Amino acid sequence: MAVRTQLGMPPRKKPGLGKEGEGRIRAAIEGVTPQIDGGRFPIKRVVGETVVVEADIFTDGQDAISAALLYCKEDDPPSLAEAPLEHLGQDRWRGAFTVTQVGRYRYTLMAWVDPFQSWCQSLVKKVEAAQDVSMELQEGARLLREASERAPQPLAGTLKGWGDALVLAEVPYSDRIQLALSPEVASVMDRYPQRLFAYTYPQELLVVVDRERARFSAWYEMFPRSCAPEPGRQGTFADCEARLPYIAAMGFDVLYLPPIHPIGHTHRKGRNNAPQAGDGEPGSPWAIGSEEGGYQSIHPQLGTLEDFRRLLAKAQEWSIEVALDLAFHCSPDHPYVREHPEWFRRRRDGSVQYAENPPKKYEDIYPLDFETPGWRELWEELKRVVLFWIEQGIRIFRVDNPHTKPFRFWEWLIAQIKEAYPDVIFLSEAFTRPKVMYRLAKLGFTQSYTYFAWRNNKGELTQYFTELTHTERREYFRGNLWPNTPDILTEYLHSGGRPAYMARLILAATLGASYGIYGPAFELCQEQPKEPGSEEYLDSEKYEIKHWDIGRPDSLAGLIARVNQIRRENPALQRDWGLRFHPVDNNQLFCYTKSTPDNVILVVVNLDSRYTQSGWVDLEALGLDPHQPYQVHDLINDARYLWHGPRNYVELNPQGVPAHIFRLPTGG
Amino acid sequence: MAVRTQLGMPPRKKPGLGKEGEGRIRAAIEGVTPQIDGGRFPIKRVVGETVVVEADIFTDGQDAISAALLYCKEDDPPSLAEAPLEHLGQDRWRGAFTVTQVGRYRYTLMAWVDPFQSWCQSLVKKVEAAQDVSMELQEGARLLREASERAPQPLAGTLKGWGDALVLAEVPYSDRIQLALSPEVASVMDRYPQRLFAYTYPQELLVVVDRERARFSAWYEMFPRSCAPEPGRQGTFADCEARLPYIAAMGFDVLYLPPIHPIGHTHRKGRNNAPQAGDGEPGSPWAIGSEEGGYQSIHPQLGTLEDFRRLLAKAQEWSIEVALDLAFHCSPDHPYVREHPEWFRRRRDGSVQYAENPPKKYEDIYPLDFETPGWRELWEELKRVVLFWIEQGIRIFRVDNPHTKPFRFWEWLIAQIKEAYPDVIFLSEAFTRPKVMYRLAKLGFTQSYTYFAWRNNKGELTQYFTELTHTERREYFRGNLWPNTPDILTEYLHSGGRPAYMARLILAATLGASYGIYGPAFELCQEQPKEPGSEEYLDSEKYEIKHWDIGRPDSLAGLIARVNQIRRENPALQRDWGLRFHPVDNNQLFCYTKSTPDNVILVVVNLDSRYTQSGWVDLEALGLDPHQPYQVHDLINDARYLWHGPRNYVELNPQGVPAHIFRLPTGG
Repeated sequence: MAVRTQLGMPPRKKPGLGKEGEGRIRAAIEGVTPQIDGGRFPIKRVVGETVVVEADIFTDGQDAISAALLYCKEDDPPSLAEAPLEHLGQDRWRGAFTVTQVGRYRYTLMAWVDPFQSWCQSLVKKVEAAQDVSMELQEGARLLREASERAPQPLAGTLKGWGDALVLAEVPYSDRIQLALSPEVASVMDRYPQRLFAYTYPQELLVVVDRERARFSAWYEMFPRSCAPEPGRQGTFADCEARLPYIAAMGFDVLYLPPIHPIGHTHRKGRNNAPQAGDGEPGSPWAIGSEEGGYQSIHPQLGTLEDFRRLLAKAQEWSIEVALDLAFHCSPDHPYVREHPEWFRRRRDGSVQYAENPPKKYEDIYPLDFETPGWRELWEELKRVVLFWIEQGIRIFRVDNPHTKPFRFWEWLIAQIKEAYPDVIFLSEAFTRPKVMYRLAKLGFTQSYTYFAWRNNKGELTQYFTELTHTERREYFRGNLWPNTPDILTEYLHSGGRPAYMARLILAATLGASYGIYGPAFELCQEQPKEPGSEEYLDSEKYEIKHWDIGRPDSLAGLIARVNQIRRENPALQRDWGLRFHPVDNNQLFCYTKSTPDNVILVVVNLDSRYTQSGWVDLEALGLDPHQPYQVHDLINDARYLWHGPRNYVELNPQGVPAHIFRLPTGG
Repeated sequence: MAVRTQLGMPPRKKPGLGKEGEGRIRAAIEGVTPQIDGGRFPIKRVVGETVVVEADIFTDGQDAISAALLYCKEDDPPSLAEAPLEHLGQDRWRGAFTVTQVGRYRYTLMAWVDPFQSWCQSLVKKVEAAQDVSMELQEGARLLREASERAPQPLAGTLKGWGDALVLAEVPYSDRIQLALSPEVASVMDRYPQRLFAYTYPQELLVVVDRERARFSAWYEMFPRSCAPEPGRQGTFADCEARLPYIAAMGFDVLYLPPIHPIGHTHRKGRNNAPQAGDGEPGSPWAIGSEEGGYQSIHPQLGTLEDFRRLLAKAQEWSIEVALDLAFHCSPDHPYVREHPEWFRRRRDGSVQYAENPPKKYEDIYPLDFETPGWRELWEELKRVVLFWIEQGIRIFRVDNPHTKPFRFWEWLIAQIKEAYPDVIFLSEAFTRPKVMYRLAKLGFTQSYTYFAWRNNKGELTQYFTELTHTERREYFRGNLWPNTPDILTEYLHSGGRPAYMARLILAATLGASYGIYGPAFELCQEQPKEPGSEEYLDSEKYEIKHWDIGRPDSLAGLIARVNQIRRENPALQRDWGLRFHPVDNNQLFCYTKSTPDNVILVVVNLDSRYTQSGWVDLEALGLDPHQPYQVHDLINDARYLWHGPRNYVELNPQGVPAHIFRLPTGG
């Protein structure tokens, strides 16, 4: 009797004699890549990209093996396609297919012992050893004739003819051997192989295919209420519209708005996160919900749903997509608190449990209790929220603190939404432990915030971006790099002034195909922390309405516009995988290339925001001709330099632009 | 509609709302080790060993998580046991269990959000921040009272009492907090945790547990027919019996006999593999089967089945186990050829296809056709063969060329046999490509021949044994190291004479917990190849009866006896995992340690069989006290040296024994 665990798992199946044919399967397939957690999670691609699959494939004995990569778009009428696999040596095989539509693809592998190829291999050796092969030619004739039964006309006739010729006594022996081993015969036999006892890899692996913006995007975060052109007035969606040309001129393609819903008044936070708001203070947009509505409502002072839809339409004219925030917690005044008391946890005194991260208390926020017996209704309601905004035209969501809600909920929600709307993008705002961040990416988030903000020196940057772009992580985790957010003003930015902002901008925009800034705080180099050592802004926009002087002459808007233009014009900057680091003999100079076959961008950044730094960059790894001079073109300031060989001198003054973005000549 | 592939695979299940409770599971478990190919294959252990399991385990939010390692012996009455898991930091957890019986064990992991621990964590922070925690104490009381319902008396009463005390106004506040956070409460709550919404890792992983000999064995291969004490006579089982004291004196515990079955006469090979045997030539024992019988018969000139059983009994008296050869192919005269023509492939002229590896032909060997429609009967018959020898008392099989038979056959056969006889050991003689060798080990072979014979210099040895003992391979691949076999006389042995034999013996016996030699060719340093560059012996014993002068004064039997005794006395040499390499400033000196907590053996081998080599070995990695002298004891010649610090001088003359086997002092 096989054991059942107390958890009701079925006993392990022991290898049995199995169903007809099973015992004669001789191929083995293992070590399949990409494959996340044994196939538990999908890999990610965008439309037009290629999935390169590798596997160890072999059989017993000396017979030749053939293998194919099988793939299909899910939810299509079943239409399995096949791509060839190439033997790389050492039993390693590789094949590829291109994903052409958003949605989900599946792939797996098939392998079989190939009698005709085995026969050819053996024939060659026997012929080389000058052995008599007349009986082998008879066997070959049989294989060709059998293949003729699998092939359509006229190839069937051709195959049969070849088969007959192999045993025609009139045809000279050497001609028959030549025919048997000819590329023509091989090519036709390859198309009609005998796949007796073929083995299919038992896992079907998944690819989630997104649209291109999932891989390449430039985000601008902005508080609508701070958009009024004149001070002292709450901004509206109409003011946002007026701000669109400014955002478009900087070259951003995603405009992310913090929550636009009614804000609670109970325990509303005041300026600088004061425990109690003063009269007329607006509160944090993340304290969602009031008598005026919840997740599906709009803060009345911002405008109406119609105004919002008009903003979306206008944004589209500027090629900007609006991203909304999904912040699934409630202010004490959110309608759910009244309508669904069972979705909230109670304290012993019967009051609703507010959010806390002891010793911190967030009395203006009630978390949703995902352990509620009513979890099914809760899940469905939150799905309705997402669908509501999709119906208004939203296709990008930035998800607030997803790591404080259950993994299963996100996996379900994202799968449900993407099944109907495969073009939707979810950005995970999980600043937490690495394994939790990676898990969220695995289970479906399209993009993820990263530790970029806290990776400032050369070693930290090199190590982190190697992990993100040169390990299995890259198959499912797409970083979105933010030098700042309304919650994150790093020490590097407090102390480094404008040069620090420029350096971090260029790092974010060139290390990451997707990046974002929280503006106008960023382009205006807002650098005052709430207190020394704090990552909170002084007079944070989270708790008050700001007026930003976006026309200030020291604004970085012009540089940002230039950098985003460079990104649009250079495919190498539109993907993360082609990143490579290069040595510089100065630890304050950070050097890397991003490459596609036709485009090589070399970036050198001075990480020191105080002093000019110089050094020799070493591009040995690019395999340049050491004797051939070449021109490098700085795309920021249009300067051109003649360089020689792999080692060249660079000097960067932080008071100018503290970085080069060079385009290198490519073969083409 | 989800797609079905043409292969009839069911559609991928999308995450659904699932059955009651599923949505509220919040724990995640991933990165479980050991786990071979996602749980497809078992790991291996021997009785008394420990399985150390690690995993990434975490949940959303800030709640505390608890986890347990679940395991059971298979085929027992269901008795799931549980071992605790310890948090190593960074969401990595570790636990262990010991396997105490041969057979199969299963293990998996369970994790759950732990309300009481979460509560404690939060309480500590609030108390530290001097917050009012009276409501928290009420919550704690509730958790303790709930636990009292899960616990038996008298603990149930204790828990309830503690719960009541937490909210007793008479008890001082600080005492109540102290009670809540006391180790006593924690320990009892740990025993009766609330495992609401516990998550069980979906894979149950397997351990095949063997007896100790699977890990630690010394093999001696010997042709019974060459055992006659006087020249010119065919040896018998009785002669083998007489040879047992000699083998036992050398310290071997496995005596492996090449096939003992009747030998075919059709196309019988002659001396030195001549295409045709002369009159009276005995043929190769691997050409199995004649009119006198097949796999279940004994070559009449060796003796009867009764003689064989007596040999087994005698061997047992000398603590030697006899291993038989499973060579699943046939001579043209094997009874199967007549009785089961369907088990053989035919050539176009109707004759049976002999074995070939073009251009080589082995006309004395017919391979079995595992693609026969009669494969089920073939598999069952071969299983009967194994069971027959098991019934005679055999528990160890050396399997000839398993890589030329289907993987599935071996997986099935070994599982079938080990289900009934879990103490059976199968040694895989697959000298082929690495992935094929590893696959055979994964699917069930207990031990495996290795590339050891062809790894001669320091770099090759270091790289190969790092792969075998410091990667996932070690979980399932147990190398058995053979410096020679009847098929393998390496160039190193042709040219190196006695010193080369001594060096290779010591390497095999100390690098590998299992090793073997083909004797008496080995101990008599038989070094003449068939032709220069060939790995075949001249006048190979495979094709003729030899007479060996085992009493020759230059025999290595004495050294072998000493080395095997050292192995028996030093646990570090009885396992493969404790291997570590150490630098020596001379490339001809190879230095490594094998360690258990109580036993450290340091081996230094001179790989140059011609010249004395000297150098400084560097034991830095052992963390020795640099100021403390220590004695090293050479277990080969009983010499003792006083060493100082990590770097010490060694000089080895190949004309003496070209190696040291030192025992180092250990803390104990």
